Amino acid sequence: MQIEFLGTGAGSPSKQRNVTSIALRLLEERNAIWLFDVGEATQHQILRTTIRPRKIEKIFITHLHGDHIFGLQGLLSSRSFQGGDEPLTIYGPTGIQKYVKTCLSASESKLSYPLNFIEISEPGVVFEDSTFKVECDHLDHKIECFGYRITEKDHPGELLVDKLREAGIPSGPLYGQLKAGKKVELSDGRILDGNDFIGQPQKGRIVTILGDSRKIDASIKLSENADVLVHESTYGKGEAKMARNHYHSTSVQAAEEAKKAGAHKLLLTHISARYIGRDAYELAYQVRDIFEDTRVVNDFDVFDIPFKG
Amino acid sequence: MQIEFLGTGAGSPSKQRNVTSIALRLLEERNAIWLFDVGEATQHQILRTTIRPRKIEKIFITHLHGDHIFGLQGLLSSRSFQGGDEPLTIYGPTGIQKYVKTCLSASESKLSYPLNFIEISEPGVVFEDSTFKVECDHLDHKIECFGYRITEKDHPGELLVDKLREAGIPSGPLYGQLKAGKKVELSDGRILDGNDFIGQPQKGRIVTILGDSRKIDASIKLSENADVLVHESTYGKGEAKMARNHYHSTSVQAAEEAKKAGAHKLLLTHISARYIGRDAYELAYQVRDIFEDTRVVNDFDVFDIPFKG
Ligand SMILES: [Zn+2]
Ligand SMILES: [Zn+2]
Repeated sequence: MQIEFLGTGAGSPSKQRNVTSIALRLLEERNAIWLFDVGEATQHQILRTTIRPRKIEKIFITHLHGDHIFGLQGLLSSRSFQGGDEPLTIYGPTGIQKYVKTCLSASESKLSYPLNFIEISEPGVVFEDSTFKVECDHLDHKIECFGYRITEKDHPGELLVDKLREAGIPSGPLYGQLKAGKKVELSDGRILDGNDFIGQPQKGRIVTILGDSRKIDASIKLSENADVLVHESTYGKGEAKMARNHYHSTSVQAAEEAKKAGAHKLLLTHISARYIGRDAYELAYQVRDIFEDTRVVNDFDVFDIPFKG
Repeated sequence: MQIEFLGTGAGSPSKQRNVTSIALRLLEERNAIWLFDVGEATQHQILRTTIRPRKIEKIFITHLHGDHIFGLQGLLSSRSFQGGDEPLTIYGPTGIQKYVKTCLSASESKLSYPLNFIEISEPGVVFEDSTFKVECDHLDHKIECFGYRITEKDHPGELLVDKLREAGIPSGPLYGQLKAGKKVELSDGRILDGNDFIGQPQKGRIVTILGDSRKIDASIKLSENADVLVHESTYGKGEAKMARNHYHSTSVQAAEEAKKAGAHKLLLTHISARYIGRDAYELAYQVRDIFEDTRVVNDFDVFDIPFKG
């Protein structure tokens, strides 16, 4: 599991940063990529990565501002042009379906794959299967905006093969039964309990990706104990009033939320073009006394998200 | 007057070529830029040029395929974000207004300038003022598609100041009257005819920019005597059947049209990603026996369009 930043700027593209898009790389976990927001030219950014559009299984949209959605129609069309045939599902606020469908029908684009929409209007679980759960909650932006909390299900413990070998149990169909936690009687009369041969389950990882927002308690709840918290930082220290007026956050507010939530790593994005070079990194340095593991991200940064402990 | 290619690829963006957009630079002529088609990430391309979005006065759309329009909403929003306040007019096939308005309203984008639409359904004059005329005609593509012929009005001859000085006429308000072609009586009794002191008028330039199309006579008519003809060349020599099936042209067809039209320079664009490097240039070399002044263009190529003779 890695998180890759395809666009880290606010509002308009600049030479330094494209508008917002984030890829959650779940290639080992489900042979898939999930995108969060798709600003204009996200497909162009993808050309410079190892991501293949056909691997994009789900797209989560935080809100319908242009810098978060104007790349959708192009990406969807190119995924089709390249012969993608796996279904794709888009999750987002009410209106996302009409936007995409109008764009595709105006341009008479016929897709080579099924495209599904799940429009969200309430907080809660938006997706769940045996390996992942995605929850959302309302944030406080000028238009309806969501934050997403992605929870990986715990991995069951591995079968302790070395311990079985030490006990003189030959590999075979027996191993499958033991791994399933069953009790098994051997030909020599011994009875083995599978649970004695299964290691500790591994806690699943938690990634929280928040859309544009003022400071709000929902952000803290979504970020509880997150391995990685991705938070906008359109403004810096001392700009809380301006941030509030423009429905955005400061780096300080992001760090305070990360701390309260007990998150483990804070990645600041949605960086204004006013902050260039050192000034951008300053957004992180300013808040390390509040939350130490804080980073300002750049386009094409990739962070590995390891299992805890 | 220059023509600058912002995107020269077909269908999807590649690392080598962005999707279609062409800028006609009329900075000396009317302190304005006109765009022809706006594929996704045209605004990103513009960041790498000297073009300022607020100078974009008119946008002409050839057809509504995604690779020709998906950059519109982003460019329009950023032009506003940057405080542009001059009106902007978009010309294009029926449907362009609904497309743009749906995109802007979904994203709750309010523009800082008046945005006008002129939807075209008939061949004819789409714009005319004292310095330029723009005509269009239907081409033959999978969806409604237009070609545009931009005609600069002839420049009246310059006042021959040297000749006036030789005749001993001192500069002053008199010069204005002579330039207007009037007859003027001097204090010494001489009568001068302004027309004797005005040079040859300068023929205006003609630029023809065609959308995607099969071979069609309308292309020839639009290109008659054009200083520059921009023609798609999605296919190469020997691919006429494939071109026809996909509603596109070959380089050979483009050259034949240029020759028949008596155009002066042929610029081939809308180059498929199948043609990389030398293979792309080959599209031009193949046809130089038909039309000598043929070039395959690349992103960011700029061509000056001088007055004839
Ligand atoms: Zn934003
Ligand atoms: Zn095209």
